[in-house]
Amino acid sequence: MEFKQYLSQQCAVVEQALTRYMLPEEGPLATHIKAMRYSLFAGGKRIRPILALAAAEALHADTQHLFPVACALECIHTYSLIHDDLPAMDDDDLRRGKPTCHVVFGEAEAILAGDGLLSFAFELLSHPDALQGISPEAQLRLINLIAKAIGPVGMVGGQSLDLAAEGQAISFEHLRLIHGYKTGALITASVQAGAIFGQGDEEQFAALSRYGVQIGLAFQIVDDLLDVEGTTEDLGKTAGADAQRNKATYPAFFGVAKTKVMAREAVDKAIAALENFDAKAEPLRDLARYIYERNK
Amino acid sequence: MEFKQYLSQQCAVVEQALTRYMLPEEGPLATHIKAMRYSLFAGGKRIRPILALAAAEALHADTQHLFPVACALECIHTYSLIHDDLPAMDDDDLRRGKPTCHVVFGEAEAILAGDGLLSFAFELLSHPDALQGISPEAQLRLINLIAKAIGPVGMVGGQSLDLAAEGQAISFEHLRLIHGYKTGALITASVQAGAIFGQGDEEQFAALSRYGVQIGLAFQIVDDLLDVEGTTEDLGKTAGADAQRNKATYPAFFGVAKTKVMAREAVDKAIAALENFDAKAEPLRDLARYIYERNK
Repeated sequence: MEFKQYLSQQCAVVEQALTRYMLPEEGPLATHIKAMRYSLFAGGKRIRPILALAAAEALHADTQHLFPVACALECIHTYSLIHDDLPAMDDDDLRRGKPTCHVVFGEAEAILAGDGLLSFAFELLSHPDALQGISPEAQLRLINLIAKAIGPVGMVGGQSLDLAAEGQAISFEHLRLIHGYKTGALITASVQAGAIFGQGDEEQFAALSRYGVQIGLAFQIVDDLLDVEGTTEDLGKTAGADAQRNKATYPAFFGVAKTKVMAREAVDKAIAALENFDAKAEPLRDLARYIYERNK
Repeated sequence: MEFKQYLSQQCAVVEQALTRYMLPEEGPLATHIKAMRYSLFAGGKRIRPILALAAAEALHADTQHLFPVACALECIHTYSLIHDDLPAMDDDDLRRGKPTCHVVFGEAEAILAGDGLLSFAFELLSHPDALQGISPEAQLRLINLIAKAIGPVGMVGGQSLDLAAEGQAISFEHLRLIHGYKTGALITASVQAGAIFGQGDEEQFAALSRYGVQIGLAFQIVDDLLDVEGTTEDLGKTAGADAQRNKATYPAFFGVAKTKVMAREAVDKAIAALENFDAKAEPLRDLARYIYERNK
């Protein structure tokens, strides 16, 4: 109950920051900005910004100046959803219970809305405001880390592998690789961004990275489970879409029962990675449990 | 003659740097990387990197550590071409005399190749190598400037306006706005990136910015002219495409003769902006003239 409150409070704070940083829908660029805002304010759970904030809090940091970074992570996540949903990609009409960006604004504008959000994310990441919390060297390290995580050997590469694997018989190792790049990399980078901002030492950074890798894994396993067990109404996106597309998933490899055990194990490992952190890391631990609870 | 040599020499140097920085086509991500490399090494003239290098040289800087930035500018330019050519956008099959990325790799992979190049550009921009030439503060300023130039109130916004204007009667002011965002912003930012790297003072930065704005303008005017006067063979892309799409262009507003005068004026203003620079700025002056000469 208390954690639910934390979540909705953090979600509201991120929402406010996004509203503050995002361009207003006015002037000649109004349509373009409207398309970006449509997807950005479509009821996302803001997990990645919340993870970054919680990781910084776990290191006793004042997160006030982390918001440009937190918002950038959400812009990047939103861009990836817009592009993934495109007709040429997963061709999804529904996202978070709403028509997808290309359904509302057309394919061309949806591609550009994604491109705009990605560029805007780097504008936020290099924002002078973020300088007040950390050194410029640390800010550059953070930008480099995020850029790597979402690039060719990261999120975008993962989506490419995912598309290529559709309808193919792939090994479990290959599925892990796809998940790691496509979903895991940005989640891990979000935690690491908070860790850099929180100015942890190398050991703390490594522990938070291990946490990030494990919850990234848990997140994807649970996503696979939800696609099997959830309804379209619950999910806000088309249920059973993976099976329909003949996609390799954890449940397809191991069945539902064993997949749940694997999700639980990843969550346990994530929490174990935080053993040397004090009570300030409790939100991170709760977030790991929350990811698992999503499938209930 | 001498300048032609300078151009081809700089082009070769940029090409080498791109080869050095770009990921190799191997491992599970080979297809994705192949698609990026296909468009990146499709015979581009490398104008933006060369502009950045020339602007830094005009300030007597050692450009050795500017290459990650120069390559990032080319990655950004290439991403924008790949996305502009997509069926949902300009639907072009030919670019630099070769089939476009989506024709060869399919639409999904072309979208991802663009996304990958854009992310990779920011990986390069935040590259520790680039630190050796300038302070981390200056590097952050450079990243912020480029991100702004290519984002919603920049290149991507310009493409959105351009698509919305197709077949519409628009004012000349609106055409200028579109050009400024779509083409001008990245060209200006390329010059400014060189200026930041060259550690010019505010006055020098302002002068180089004025130069950048004017050659950005000249570049687009000449592009409009080439579309009217060039052949598909000359251009390496479909000639007459603008007129076919009923696009607003400088020649459509003013006729070919007056448009040529306007291009010349922009080049003259660009050169005039460099009046306080010495012989080290000669390549920048030559580049301005070269842009004009393209239409001969």
